[in-house]
Amino acid sequence: MAEQRHHYIAVSDKTVHWGYFSRSLAPLVEVESGDLVTIETLTHQANDDAELMVRGDPGAESVFHWSATKKNVDRRIGAHICTGPVAIKGAAPGDILEVRILDVTPRPCANPLHQGKAFGSNAAGSWGFHYGDTVEEPKEREVITIYEVDATAERNWARAVYNFRWTPQTDPFGVTHALMNYPGIPVDHATIKKNHGVLKDIRVPIRPHFGVMGVAPAEADPVSSVPPNYTGGNIDNWRIGKGATMYYPVSVDGALFSVGDPHASQGDAELCGTAIECSLTGTFKLVLHKKADLPGTPLADLHYPLLETPDEWFVHGFSYPRYLTDLGADAQSAIFEKSSIDLAMRDAYRKMRHFLMTTQNLTEDEAISLMSVAADFGITQVVDGNWGVHAIIKKNIFPSRRG
Amino acid sequence: MAEQRHHYIAVSDKTVHWGYFSRSLAPLVEVESGDLVTIETLTHQANDDAELMVRGDPGAESVFHWSATKKNVDRRIGAHICTGPVAIKGAAPGDILEVRILDVTPRPCANPLHQGKAFGSNAAGSWGFHYGDTVEEPKEREVITIYEVDATAERNWARAVYNFRWTPQTDPFGVTHALMNYPGIPVDHATIKKNHGVLKDIRVPIRPHFGVMGVAPAEADPVSSVPPNYTGGNIDNWRIGKGATMYYPVSVDGALFSVGDPHASQGDAELCGTAIECSLTGTFKLVLHKKADLPGTPLADLHYPLLETPDEWFVHGFSYPRYLTDLGADAQSAIFEKSSIDLAMRDAYRKMRHFLMTTQNLTEDEAISLMSVAADFGITQVVDGNWGVHAIIKKNIFPSRRG
Repeated sequence: MAEQRHHYIAVSDKTVHWGYFSRSLAPLVEVESGDLVTIETLTHQANDDAELMVRGDPGAESVFHWSATKKNVDRRIGAHICTGPVAIKGAAPGDILEVRILDVTPRPCANPLHQGKAFGSNAAGSWGFHYGDTVEEPKEREVITIYEVDATAERNWARAVYNFRWTPQTDPFGVTHALMNYPGIPVDHATIKKNHGVLKDIRVPIRPHFGVMGVAPAEADPVSSVPPNYTGGNIDNWRIGKGATMYYPVSVDGALFSVGDPHASQGDAELCGTAIECSLTGTFKLVLHKKADLPGTPLADLHYPLLETPDEWFVHGFSYPRYLTDLGADAQSAIFEKSSIDLAMRDAYRKMRHFLMTTQNLTEDEAISLMSVAADFGITQVVDGNWGVHAIIKKNIFPSRRG
Repeated sequence: MAEQRHHYIAVSDKTVHWGYFSRSLAPLVEVESGDLVTIETLTHQANDDAELMVRGDPGAESVFHWSATKKNVDRRIGAHICTGPVAIKGAAPGDILEVRILDVTPRPCANPLHQGKAFGSNAAGSWGFHYGDTVEEPKEREVITIYEVDATAERNWARAVYNFRWTPQTDPFGVTHALMNYPGIPVDHATIKKNHGVLKDIRVPIRPHFGVMGVAPAEADPVSSVPPNYTGGNIDNWRIGKGATMYYPVSVDGALFSVGDPHASQGDAELCGTAIECSLTGTFKLVLHKKADLPGTPLADLHYPLLETPDEWFVHGFSYPRYLTDLGADAQSAIFEKSSIDLAMRDAYRKMRHFLMTTQNLTEDEAISLMSVAADFGITQVVDGNWGVHAIIKKNIFPSRRG
């Protein structure tokens, strides 16, 4: 057996792809199944307050560098800064990639004025579920709230620092953005009104996780980072953090694993459009399960992203489980018009039934009864184009089986 | 101050109303605010196996008695056997009724062959989310699974005993029911094929709670017990058990509190149409909050059913929050055609925003950010006509406020 290696991928303009997955990206590194890899990630909201989230951080500065003549990293289609891809040696379509999240740590603020702290941004944007449905005027307003996180991770809660309402921002190329429709715009703090003391004394429980994690899909190129897919991506389940394991169907040779959209905390639904978007570093163990070895194992016939935590399993349902093929040639725009929680619930039901029948050898009648009396269905997100419902089943329900 | 009294309501054909709430029912008892009341409840599915859930139990036998010439209790409109109503002295529209659930215990099987056990039935019915969407044939099948619960409550899990597929059943009046569309039909066990050994070795965690609990609505009479409403009713949140407190807007004089639809366990969504339907007895403390005393308290302006547990608050969103008025004269039939989780999510968002703004004194911008990063939205049920989404917020988020 080969020795286990531990790779390190620092984040920089050379190691990210912004806004998309692509089957044709050259891998940063090729790893063996079983290797460890530590990957730095950056939140695409860092320029909401560059003093707190970019300045003095060479990796962030290289990614966010944007002058009148040069933007170091071009964003394409979607929103999220993804670090990668990492190729897994020998991976091919039909295999399963297991990703064990061994550690997740906040990226400390590099500004010496804020030592020991980390910061994140929550953007209540025009794509949020609340947008236009408010009691206060103007109903169509966008709001950014900056949160402080303890970079030493001793404190398990975050607190708000200030918020502001979005005002038109002119980017370094001279384009004015009336809406915050372009992640990475450097917010000019001379043009905004900061409200300090917001959410006073409120402690937001910390749930560090990666909103986007997954492998490159084969069906189109490039593919927006926003809608989640059977290959993972922007699932936005806050349980995809330290101690969790994800299983993804491999769609292209090498799998092409990427990770981004780091969150310090999020609630189920991600209602306003974002979480506490906060740069994080993760350490992952990547294990390849070859198609030929799957029959007879719980991973046989797995055709959706599966999450395992110490106590539970989760299947992820989407409005359109394979939207790139479900919605035809216009899939990447159509998905933003067609989603519903009802459809995602339908998909989550089918996937939980499949999980119980295939991994626990239940009949369909048994699976349907069990999921009615013992599985919990939650709303993962309603803001990523392809909306999500997850179904949860506890492992201790099956004391004599696979644990 | 008056002495606290403890009332006891045994379940019988004289103390239940089956399938509906009604503003014109005579109360069984009138209690003072602060009184305790212990209430026995029966599951409407008990006749799925009368040997296990009816026989030898005088209360159940009186409720389920049905011969060729006499049915002791007429079901109306809906499904659930409700015990009550209990009037609260001085209650009037605009008040809030607080219901603290002090204890919940299973109703022991009265058949001496099964001492120490209790039983429940899970019915996967034609109103279930799965119905018609199955991988096995026939796609339109109904299945009942009988579960055993430990009546001494020492064991915190239930296990399946057997299941069977529904076959046409002829009721004592001679009507044949091809579908299980009439709760209370005595199933003739000579006509069914029991499958023993189903869900072998599986332990379903126990979550005893009341599916239906609430006060009578003013807007119509009678009102089906199936769709939940702003006055509570069939909310089907499995957290409405021991240690929980519910707050209901009072709609009619006396409030007219009733409880039924007891469940030994249920998952969020109640996917197949029912839980483990299992007779239970609850002890409640009823506290009346008069309208005039509400201003300045967290209950001011509460216009929806609110759940408080030791660690969390829950608001309950519905597809139509006041469906009897939202949907006009045909509301009681229209509600079964119009529900969606998307609408219930919309309502849950508005209610959680209201809760945070009114009870925690947040601005709307603060409330929207906080619920995005710290509130979890789950699917309560998709089988009760008026579908439900609940939103959860943890109390320890507000360390310096109301605990």
